[in-house]
Amino acid sequence: MKNNNFGIIMAGGVGSRFWPLSTAANPKQFHDILGTGRTFLQQTFDRLSQIIPHDQIYVVTLDEYVDLTLEQLPGLSKEQIVAEPVGMNTAPCNLYAAMLIQEKNPNANIVVAPSDHVILDEKTFLTKLSLALEEAEKNDTLITLGIKPTRPDTGYGYIQFIESKNKLKKVKTFTEKPGIELAEVFYKSGEFLWNAGIFVWNVKTIIQSFQTHLPEMAESFQSIKKPLSSPEGKKELRKLYGTVQFVSIDNGIMEKADNVYVIPSSFGWSDLGTWKSLYENLKKDKQGNVKKGKPILTYNSNKSLVYTSQNKAVIIDGLENYIVVDTENALLICPMDKDQTIKTFVSDLKLNKGEQFT
Amino acid sequence: MKNNNFGIIMAGGVGSRFWPLSTAANPKQFHDILGTGRTFLQQTFDRLSQIIPHDQIYVVTLDEYVDLTLEQLPGLSKEQIVAEPVGMNTAPCNLYAAMLIQEKNPNANIVVAPSDHVILDEKTFLTKLSLALEEAEKNDTLITLGIKPTRPDTGYGYIQFIESKNKLKKVKTFTEKPGIELAEVFYKSGEFLWNAGIFVWNVKTIIQSFQTHLPEMAESFQSIKKPLSSPEGKKELRKLYGTVQFVSIDNGIMEKADNVYVIPSSFGWSDLGTWKSLYENLKKDKQGNVKKGKPILTYNSNKSLVYTSQNKAVIIDGLENYIVVDTENALLICPMDKDQTIKTFVSDLKLNKGEQFT
Repeated sequence: MKNNNFGIIMAGGVGSRFWPLSTAANPKQFHDILGTGRTFLQQTFDRLSQIIPHDQIYVVTLDEYVDLTLEQLPGLSKEQIVAEPVGMNTAPCNLYAAMLIQEKNPNANIVVAPSDHVILDEKTFLTKLSLALEEAEKNDTLITLGIKPTRPDTGYGYIQFIESKNKLKKVKTFTEKPGIELAEVFYKSGEFLWNAGIFVWNVKTIIQSFQTHLPEMAESFQSIKKPLSSPEGKKELRKLYGTVQFVSIDNGIMEKADNVYVIPSSFGWSDLGTWKSLYENLKKDKQGNVKKGKPILTYNSNKSLVYTSQNKAVIIDGLENYIVVDTENALLICPMDKDQTIKTFVSDLKLNKGEQFT
Repeated sequence: MKNNNFGIIMAGGVGSRFWPLSTAANPKQFHDILGTGRTFLQQTFDRLSQIIPHDQIYVVTLDEYVDLTLEQLPGLSKEQIVAEPVGMNTAPCNLYAAMLIQEKNPNANIVVAPSDHVILDEKTFLTKLSLALEEAEKNDTLITLGIKPTRPDTGYGYIQFIESKNKLKKVKTFTEKPGIELAEVFYKSGEFLWNAGIFVWNVKTIIQSFQTHLPEMAESFQSIKKPLSSPEGKKELRKLYGTVQFVSIDNGIMEKADNVYVIPSSFGWSDLGTWKSLYENLKKDKQGNVKKGKPILTYNSNKSLVYTSQNKAVIIDGLENYIVVDTENALLICPMDKDQTIKTFVSDLKLNKGEQFT
C-alpha cells in the first residue's frame, strides 16, 4: 500500500534566545545542546521517520542553511529541501512545501513539525500523530497537537478547545503568549492547551485553506504555470517569494479557519525556547546547578546553568540563579530570569560592532 | 670607561594568582596584561637597559621558559640566560647568577629585579637605582629600594628602617605580609616601606654574604672547580642544584645580614600581584568597570574587571565587584575580594582532572 504520509520540518528559524550558542550562522536547530549525539533537526527527522517514509520528509529552511541541513541529514535528496530565499514566516513556506508535496502525491497527509523542540515520550507522540493522520485522511480538518499545560507558562501561545467526548476537540480560539495572571486563569480552567506548532492536514485541505484565508498568497503562488518541482517553476517562485505577505500559519490560517481541531497530548514536550527552559529540563547537582563542560568547578553557587562548548576549565564563585554560556564567539553571563532579554543583548551587540558574533 | 653595572632579572616564577591568564606553561611575566605592546619581562629589560649595557643583563628562569625568554628577548645571548633545572626559590639562583657575573667581571655591581612588576615613573626609578649602584660600588652594603606605602596593604612584606639624614637608611627588620591591624600600624608609623624585591650590591659583597649566611650553599657551589660559564662547570652545577637549601634571598640573606640599607622610593610601583591590583591600576568607565576585549557590553554591572584574551563578544548582566577572566584555556568568574583564593581554585582544578588548564 502506498504511504500517503508526508512530513514538513520547519528548520529556517534564526532565533537569538539561545545566543551565544545559537547564532545567525549556526542556529539552534543545528545544535546538540542536550548532548544526545544528535542535533535537534536530526532528532526531529528520526522521530518522524518512524511513521513517514524517509524520502517523504521535507525540510524547509533558508538558502544559507541548505549546506548545514545536508551535512546533518546526508540521506536527504535535493527535492526534499525546500529552500527559502528569504524568511517570510511560517505561512508562505507551508504553502510552498504543500504545493511541492501535492505535485508528488495529491492525496498526501502532511505533518508539520518545528525542528528544534524536545519530545521525551516518543511513543505517545507517535500514537497521537497517527490518530491525527487518520483524521486528516478522512476529513477536511486542520489538526494540531496541543500540549496539556503543567504550569502557567507565559512563554507559549495557548489553544482553547470545546470539551467533548471525542479524541479530537474543536478549537475555540488561538491566543498569543498571555501575561502571568491570564496564564494562571488558562492553566486552572483546564480548557487551554499549549500551542506546540505541530500541525496535521491533508494537502487538499491546507491548500484550500490558503485559498480561503490568504487568497492573495495562494493566487500568487498558483499563477506559476510550471510545476514548482521543475527548475523553471522554482525559479519563478523564488522571484516572487519575497513579495507575498509575511505571516505565520497560526495568524494567517489557524486563527481564521473554523475546521480546526486539537488533540490534547502529553509527551514530555518542550520547545526549549530559552536557556531557562534548558536548565529546567536538565539534571541538576546537589546545589541545583547544571554544568555542561569539563571540568567546571563551582563555589558558593546555586541554581545556575554553566555551559561551555569549548575545551576549557570553568571556575565560578558566588553566582546564584545565573546563566553562564561560553562559546568560541562569545561569553554570556546574566541572571536566569533575564533569559528573555537575551534578544535585546544580541541586538545591542549588533549596534556595537559585534555583528560578527551574533 | 668600562661599565661595571650588571642586571639580574628574576623570571622563573610560576604564580597562579593571575590564573587563568598566567598558567604553568605561560606565566605572568611573559604576558602583556596591560596591553602596552611589551610583556612584563620585556618592560623590565627595557627599563634596566637604560643604565646597564644590554649584554650585561642576565635573565634567571626555569629550563622550560628558556625558549619563551629568547622569543621575547631575541637579542639575548645564551650566556645571559641563567636556566634553573628546578625552581629553588630566590637565594640559589642569585648565588648562581652572581658567580657567573663574577667570572665575567669581579668588580660588577648588580641590580636584581623581579620580571613582572609595574613601574610607572621610570625616571625616578632610574635615579634611585643609580644612587644604589654608586653606593654598591663604594661600600660593602646590601641595598634595597623600598616603596613608600600608600595604603595599609596586607599583600606585601614590609621593611622597617632607622630614620637618618642619609639617603640610604639602615634597615632594622624585614617582616612578612602582616594582618590588617599590623599593616595599619606600619602604614601610620612612617618607619615602614614595602619590600619590592629590588636589590643592589657588589658581586663581592653578595658572594661574601652567602658565605656568611648560607655557608653550605656557598660551599656546594664553590666546590665546582671549572668556571660555571663553561659547559663542564654548568653541567656540575645543574647536578647539585636541586640539593641545596630551598630559600628566598630575603629569608636567607637580607633578614640575617646587618649591612642592609634601604632607599625609600616612590616611582608608581605595583607588583600587580592579583587581578584586584590590576583592576586598581587600570582606567575605569563610568560604572567603575575595567574592560579588556571588544566588544564587551555590561548591564547593571559595577566595579568589575572583565577581561578576555580571545576574539569574542562578552555580555555581562548584574555583576558587582566581580572578576571575569576568559582565556583559551579557562573561564574564571569570582568576586573581586576572592582574588587571593584563586590559588586554591587552581589547586582544586589540578585535583579535578584539570591539570592541563592550570
